[in-house]
Amino acid sequence: MAPHRALTAAWDADRPAIGGWITTGSEMLIEAYGAAGYDYVGIDCQHSTFDERDAAQVLRRLPACPFAMFVRVSKNDPALIGRVVDAGAEGVIVPMVDTAQEAAAAVAAIRFPPEGQRSFGPGRADMGTTTDAIESRVSLFVMIETTDGLANVEEICAVPGLTGVYVGPGDLSVSLGLAPMDGFSTDQIEGPLATIRAAATAHDVVLGIHSAGGADAARWARLGCRLISLGSDMALFRAATVADRNTALDV
Amino acid sequence: MAPHRALTAAWDADRPAIGGWITTGSEMLIEAYGAAGYDYVGIDCQHSTFDERDAAQVLRRLPACPFAMFVRVSKNDPALIGRVVDAGAEGVIVPMVDTAQEAAAAVAAIRFPPEGQRSFGPGRADMGTTTDAIESRVSLFVMIETTDGLANVEEICAVPGLTGVYVGPGDLSVSLGLAPMDGFSTDQIEGPLATIRAAATAHDVVLGIHSAGGADAARWARLGCRLISLGSDMALFRAATVADRNTALDV
Amino acid sequence: MAPHRALTAAWDADRPAIGGWITTGSEMLIEAYGAAGYDYVGIDCQHSTFDERDAAQVLRRLPACPFAMFVRVSKNDPALIGRVVDAGAEGVIVPMVDTAQEAAAAVAAIRFPPEGQRSFGPGRADMGTTTDAIESRVSLFVMIETTDGLANVEEICAVPGLTGVYVGPGDLSVSLGLAPMDGFSTDQIEGPLATIRAAATAHDVVLGIHSAGGADAARWARLGCRLISLGSDMALFRAATVADRNTALDV
Amino acid sequence: MAPHRALTAAWDADRPAIGGWITTGSEMLIEAYGAAGYDYVGIDCQHSTFDERDAAQVLRRLPACPFAMFVRVSKNDPALIGRVVDAGAEGVIVPMVDTAQEAAAAVAAIRFPPEGQRSFGPGRADMGTTTDAIESRVSLFVMIETTDGLANVEEICAVPGLTGVYVGPGDLSVSLGLAPMDGFSTDQIEGPLATIRAAATAHDVVLGIHSAGGADAARWARLGCRLISLGSDMALFRAATVADRNTALDV
Amino acid sequence: MAPHRALTAAWDADRPAIGGWITTGSEMLIEAYGAAGYDYVGIDCQHSTFDERDAAQVLRRLPACPFAMFVRVSKNDPALIGRVVDAGAEGVIVPMVDTAQEAAAAVAAIRFPPEGQRSFGPGRADMGTTTDAIESRVSLFVMIETTDGLANVEEICAVPGLTGVYVGPGDLSVSLGLAPMDGFSTDQIEGPLATIRAAATAHDVVLGIHSAGGADAARWARLGCRLISLGSDMALFRAATVADRNTALDV
Amino acid sequence: MAPHRALTAAWDADRPAIGGWITTGSEMLIEAYGAAGYDYVGIDCQHSTFDERDAAQVLRRLPACPFAMFVRVSKNDPALIGRVVDAGAEGVIVPMVDTAQEAAAAVAAIRFPPEGQRSFGPGRADMGTTTDAIESRVSLFVMIETTDGLANVEEICAVPGLTGVYVGPGDLSVSLGLAPMDGFSTDQIEGPLATIRAAATAHDVVLGIHSAGGADAARWARLGCRLISLGSDMALFRAATVADRNTALDV
Ligand SMILES: [Mg+2]
Ligand SMILES: [Mg+2]
Ligand SMILES: [Mg+2]
Ligand SMILES: [Mg+2]
Ligand SMILES: [Mg+2]
Ligand SMILES: [Mg+2]
Repeated sequence: MAPHRALTAAWDADRPAIGGWITTGSEMLIEAYGAAGYDYVGIDCQHSTFDERDAAQVLRRLPACPFAMFVRVSKNDPALIGRVVDAGAEGVIVPMVDTAQEAAAAVAAIRFPPEGQRSFGPGRADMGTTTDAIESRVSLFVMIETTDGLANVEEICAVPGLTGVYVGPGDLSVSLGLAPMDGFSTDQIEGPLATIRAAATAHDVVLGIHSAGGADAARWARLGCRLISLGSDMALFRAATVADRNTALDV
Repeated sequence: MAPHRALTAAWDADRPAIGGWITTGSEMLIEAYGAAGYDYVGIDCQHSTFDERDAAQVLRRLPACPFAMFVRVSKNDPALIGRVVDAGAEGVIVPMVDTAQEAAAAVAAIRFPPEGQRSFGPGRADMGTTTDAIESRVSLFVMIETTDGLANVEEICAVPGLTGVYVGPGDLSVSLGLAPMDGFSTDQIEGPLATIRAAATAHDVVLGIHSAGGADAARWARLGCRLISLGSDMALFRAATVADRNTALDV
Repeated sequence: MAPHRALTAAWDADRPAIGGWITTGSEMLIEAYGAAGYDYVGIDCQHSTFDERDAAQVLRRLPACPFAMFVRVSKNDPALIGRVVDAGAEGVIVPMVDTAQEAAAAVAAIRFPPEGQRSFGPGRADMGTTTDAIESRVSLFVMIETTDGLANVEEICAVPGLTGVYVGPGDLSVSLGLAPMDGFSTDQIEGPLATIRAAATAHDVVLGIHSAGGADAARWARLGCRLISLGSDMALFRAATVADRNTALDV
Repeated sequence: MAPHRALTAAWDADRPAIGGWITTGSEMLIEAYGAAGYDYVGIDCQHSTFDERDAAQVLRRLPACPFAMFVRVSKNDPALIGRVVDAGAEGVIVPMVDTAQEAAAAVAAIRFPPEGQRSFGPGRADMGTTTDAIESRVSLFVMIETTDGLANVEEICAVPGLTGVYVGPGDLSVSLGLAPMDGFSTDQIEGPLATIRAAATAHDVVLGIHSAGGADAARWARLGCRLISLGSDMALFRAATVADRNTALDV
Repeated sequence: MAPHRALTAAWDADRPAIGGWITTGSEMLIEAYGAAGYDYVGIDCQHSTFDERDAAQVLRRLPACPFAMFVRVSKNDPALIGRVVDAGAEGVIVPMVDTAQEAAAAVAAIRFPPEGQRSFGPGRADMGTTTDAIESRVSLFVMIETTDGLANVEEICAVPGLTGVYVGPGDLSVSLGLAPMDGFSTDQIEGPLATIRAAATAHDVVLGIHSAGGADAARWARLGCRLISLGSDMALFRAATVADRNTALDV
Repeated sequence: MAPHRALTAAWDADRPAIGGWITTGSEMLIEAYGAAGYDYVGIDCQHSTFDERDAAQVLRRLPACPFAMFVRVSKNDPALIGRVVDAGAEGVIVPMVDTAQEAAAAVAAIRFPPEGQRSFGPGRADMGTTTDAIESRVSLFVMIETTDGLANVEEICAVPGLTGVYVGPGDLSVSLGLAPMDGFSTDQIEGPLATIRAAATAHDVVLGIHSAGGADAARWARLGCRLISLGSDMALFRAATVADRNTALDV
């Protein structure tokens, strides 16, 4: 339940933890994020074509990262969450959490009895041998991205064992009847974000959020977010390909 | 929620939409169905050895099909349905639906708030950018293949947002205490099929069905079915291998 | 629902059925277990990096084993259970079963209507053609590995259609507040095991258990266990590599 | 060097051995050919998207086939040939052989010293333990499909250890300045085929040929060919999809 | 032998053709290059962890690209070259060509008899049906990157059927006793490049070159190169990750 | 060209370097060998179902091993050797080397110009940046396993840049007309081994050999071998499964 040292190092330096976001599944891109000094890398099993099994196979091979490996699971499901934490995920992001009960179920999936219901079966030698050691290496974030989640954010933030909340600007916008992509680039969710921030602050949990890239991330940082994922590998690569071609052709 | 143009073209021509059925997972066989003029191809994630993640990887690579890509998911689960529609599935077939509530949950998995609970994350550039555009490209069929489903077919057909019902002759036969394979080749489910057809007609939803091949399909067509999957890639290939060998040996 | 002939042969010889345990996913190691005379091989989809889809692909290729193929699924889920039994699994082990209701749901996942809710779709030619033949080739074990499961073991053993219970010494220890690995090597769960054995005997279901290797297994056998998995492929290989290196270097 | 019993059974029955041809790589299609009574199945590593490594992985899993497994390798290369025979291939077809020296090199790749240069490393338990047993289970065909090969066919057929020659109507046509696909459907290569047949007969080696399907195969059989591959999995499937759709739509 | 229309369009517009370079194997990154307006994408089978078989599988799925797909093969080998052109490669880059004889062998691998020795077996429906159509869609570049190749560049450029020469600044530097990476960023190979350009111009073949990115590419363009690959997917992604993180943290 | 520190540490301790041998391709088994203190692990691309591309993918993911990673390539081919050394292999074993010329070609494949012909393209960040650094991290062994190789062993050992010779008892036996498996377990090749050892000693290159397991290895060590691979992962696992089952059943 203690955040990875790469995250706490960022916070100790009074800056947000910055994450890369993997939608291609490529291990080489994960390594590139790490080499560039990102504090964590998030593998997305929800909006991608791979799943928690694929993430687990990648995770098992990356035992000694100086950065934290997060997984956004596709569903609030203890078997899927168990698979990725067994494989070494240091953070889990659970999408579409609407209630404190759902948040508590997510926490129970990463904690052993009596606090939770996780099954014992660590998959890597370097994860520790006691239940305390094994469960303490995982952070748990639930996504606030629906009107229900927003309405219940106070109770959600009060769930014991939660590391933080993670805002999904796209889905939150849709749920509020707004255009999804504008959630990233405009101020349309700044009001709800202030509500969420207040709840997170009151309960001393981390406020995280997704961004569409570095410029947006800087804005989210100014608005108090402490864990910020930068767009995605594909978004970054697309922009880079355009820019490099323009340089080559001098246009 | 609007059927793919390949389906409506068939219906405009006053004939059923004809589908191929993939149980091998082979992309080359998908392409062969398409080249042969099938209106849709269904990838079966329920009774096969691959899953929705595999289907999603195939779907992501097939952006510009002139035919519709359907997936039969293994379960009425919003994460699994979300995975295949994010990857571009134009139709989803949900097995073993017993009640209107279950049918409504399936619809909610392909529609965004406020009508549904789908999470926003289209995986291909050609899927549109608005929630309306993205959700409107997917058809949703629920399978009527249990005695419960049969009993509730009227309420199921009335669920808003449903494209149609899809009859599973094998499981429906089992549920009725009959031999599964006879469901395809005999008239043993024609009575229940009439009941389902009446409900579909009353609520103006499409009546679909699985067949064991072209000859059966012609019978289902005469009985009013408008979306008919022809057996499977393996059934077709098995018959073809026998016939071609006989031709070669002149037997 | 009838155990595989390899299991009954062991029991007829008045010895426990001995199983190998696959956590690497390697088909070559499965074959090695079989060649060594193991009565069954269990593919673990819960505490490994592969899933039921991977297990199904392996199973489909192994039609004519003289030993039984078991799968421990990651979750008590009819779609996941259906996938592996369609592919030919002769035994299913369901983890973390707490109540008779959960055990009954697991049984329903391998039985066709009217007794259960399994969907018809056998994936191999050698599995039989009738629902009776197809369902009769699968054994179903539920894991007793929580304090709840222990408290309800009498009712669980009474569930019709259950082949047996399978004790998880690690999770049971955790649930009892004890060190997980000591569950294998000490007598700390012998009291609970006696309770479980009594319930299994009373209801004439098989008592199975996981062991950390041959020596532990011999102890479990003396304590009345009739189906015993030996550690895992990795545990076995690790010990063998150390021993062979020592032999080579004469140390 | 002794043909597989499935081939000799065909010849004993005074009919050609009939083969299926795999270009998709699908193991399920291989099994379908076998179930349909084909005498051999050829995996094509030359004109496909998979290679000898993929073929080897499929072969290793198919130890007890009643039919023979052949591989057309992509090149006359002892490492590639060694890979597939180690994995259990019972026949090897080597493309584009122009000279007796090249044919002898192909033979050397499947025979151990002193006759050949194959390296010892059988990959399956059922292949035998002596070099004689292991090498005797493999047939070797070289393709005659160039003007050079045609000119040298007499010397090629005289190479010790050769099982037969295998005619490629497409490439042979190209090499003769003719349209490749007409090589299958017209009589344009019947003259060269007569030359090849005479050489094969004189040296008592088997005359094999590729066909575009059963009807062509019957013609090749009448022209004296004794080992005939029927088109390909894809050609067969394409034709079957068209026919079945027509049946369904009654067109 | 006619360059892809995307290349000729660039040259008609009096600018070099610009290519992206794939070392990760990711199909999503290939698509991103295409969407960004690159004229071709080169899949590197030489200095990567994948091979021609992997490239062929990607190529087969990309039939209707508006950009050209190139493959750098790992070796001047007709089987490897045949594999990728059968799968649809529109350009082949052959590394380490030292002599005109080697260049002629590379040309022979993409041309059918009588000009070459390619075997007939197109793998996609859209490649044409005649040998002329099929071979005319492929460009062939040989790499000049050794002192031998440099010494023989005049004869190499004179080989009939060659589309162009492609300079490898790293290997050419090593061969000249210079530091490999300085080949990209300094003027150390400008002298040899002038020699190569003169030969290419004299024989009217295209001068291509590898660059480390857009800035270098602009320099190569000014020095007369007409086909320029920009660094690699990984180099581009690495730089982009650093820049985006800096933007996020405002450093 | 300098052996990995794990090897020199063994030799400094006056004991042979001990290696594990991978024929399954499993990364988990590689890690187990390493954890057990083996000095190197050899991935076999010759007598297995995987190839150099698969080995390269495994190698790229194992950057910080405390043990050395070796690959036995399938063939003396610079493209295949280049692929695995680019991916980080610290040792290459080349099979079936008959002459000094072949040995020199193998050395040239791992050395850059002017000494060799390796193409520059290191695939991992930790391999160094200069050609000297990159080539110095690779050891090169050629296999002496034919009568020709044995006859030429003196000249082979004299090839500059060679790290050592590696004896293949199975193939050497076959080449000598002896039973292959007896090469491991009897003294039948001790005479030829003495010849090879003398040549290795004279030219100060390392004498390596394959063994069938620890007991054989101890014998080879007594006979002067300094680099000894222990059987294979499968041989080790097979023996362990038998022993553990016997322990469990007390037989
Ligand atoms: Mg979201
Ligand atoms: Mg059904
Ligand atoms: Mg457990
Ligand atoms: Mg040919
Ligand atoms: Mg180069
Ligand atoms: Mg050998």
